[in-house]
Amino acid sequence: MVLKVYADRMSQPSRAVIIFCKMNGINYEEIKVHISKGQHLTSEFAEINPMKQLPAIIDGRFKLFESHAILIYLACAFPGVSDHWYPADVSRRSRIHSVLDWHHSNLRRGAAPYVFNTTIAPVLGRPLNPQAAAEAETILTSSLSKLESFWLKGNGRFLLGGNQPSIADLSLVCEIMQLEVLDEKDRARLLDPHKKVQQWIENTRNATSPHFDEVHKVLMKAKERLQYQRLKAAKNEGGSDMKKPLPSRM
Amino acid sequence: MVLKVYADRMSQPSRAVIIFCKMNGINYEEIKVHISKGQHLTSEFAEINPMKQLPAIIDGRFKLFESHAILIYLACAFPGVSDHWYPADVSRRSRIHSVLDWHHSNLRRGAAPYVFNTTIAPVLGRPLNPQAAAEAETILTSSLSKLESFWLKGNGRFLLGGNQPSIADLSLVCEIMQLEVLDEKDRARLLDPHKKVQQWIENTRNATSPHFDEVHKVLMKAKERLQYQRLKAAKNEGGSDMKKPLPSRM
Repeated sequence: MVLKVYADRMSQPSRAVIIFCKMNGINYEEIKVHISKGQHLTSEFAEINPMKQLPAIIDGRFKLFESHAILIYLACAFPGVSDHWYPADVSRRSRIHSVLDWHHSNLRRGAAPYVFNTTIAPVLGRPLNPQAAAEAETILTSSLSKLESFWLKGNGRFLLGGNQPSIADLSLVCEIMQLEVLDEKDRARLLDPHKKVQQWIENTRNATSPHFDEVHKVLMKAKERLQYQRLKAAKNEGGSDMKKPLPSRM
Repeated sequence: MVLKVYADRMSQPSRAVIIFCKMNGINYEEIKVHISKGQHLTSEFAEINPMKQLPAIIDGRFKLFESHAILIYLACAFPGVSDHWYPADVSRRSRIHSVLDWHHSNLRRGAAPYVFNTTIAPVLGRPLNPQAAAEAETILTSSLSKLESFWLKGNGRFLLGGNQPSIADLSLVCEIMQLEVLDEKDRARLLDPHKKVQQWIENTRNATSPHFDEVHKVLMKAKERLQYQRLKAAKNEGGSDMKKPLPSRM
């Protein structure tokens, strides 16, 4: 039975898992679960993942959720995955665990709520929350600084001084990619001070080409639609259009 | 060179790492870093962990932080650690990763800010924050419910239906143990609805005896001091004593 990947490409951890499968020739069936339609909240999907979050996988009779756990499982359970993704060496592997744990309490806690509370909430029929956005920005900015000054120090092209990407690079870069849907000036304000971070995003994109861009297409289409709506709202000298749902799915 | 563990036993992930070392006969030197004295914020400690958090380890020349990563490292790098702590089987191991990842975004995000904003903040000279406490309580309650209904389902005595503890049991139970410092009625209100969770805490305590109680002594002393202060404040018909720093360290 082929590996089933339950995913929404608008979800950053879903994208990381799909790119990983494509990069490593893992045969899988992608089952789309549309967050914007609330499909992850159904009792049917709760049978797959009782936490009602994406991504989740089923491999034979084995069910698993949490994207970091899934990436590690795929790296270990499928043959032919190159060592650089999840090194067998205990120390190198442990440092990857350390980045991934850090990701949970830092970058993820900054990026996702910032994007939601500045941009995505109205698309899902929810109000913007400037206070939550401000709190998330503090965490996001601090996380980007730590990436620049610590996780990307050294001469390597990837996290922890690596010259080839690990599952941590994939996971964290997909997280940052959600900033694409922000207003362009806002995104530049956040990312411009972090040159190493910008170069690392490019390095990860290049190392996982053409899958990276293909899997991010849905996000880029959402970016275009949001930019169009911003222009339209600016012309109307109001922002009310932002509160209407987008015509097609996000 | 002996393993160095930088820890404060008032920190729940520090306790998990110390209990793990004791349970598995890992020879280590405990280097106390007092959070209440701000010792984790010094530039000296930033050389050990640039994120300025506890615990952290140094094993030879290898530095590592993030408690889950440390527990996994210790289980893999030291001989004689029983398989149940961190199973070699890919599926069983992956489910432990899944619990540990879930812990970051759920139980940890509920328990720690709830205890801080209802109880510990004044001890560290910070104000209580009822709104932050209320938000944390929502996450904490939901996390305890998910532990009860999902992670502890089945007939096993531990998470994921296990009959022996894993690093996930140790990590999550140490997290919950911080609720001991709450007002007794408040703690009962939070934990009483979750009978399986209560039994699992006892199972983990018993399985790691006598180290569990020994490592939690500092927390229990803090609990006693806080209870004494509450009584004193109640007698004085005011709560101002709660705002004074505790006479001895927490």
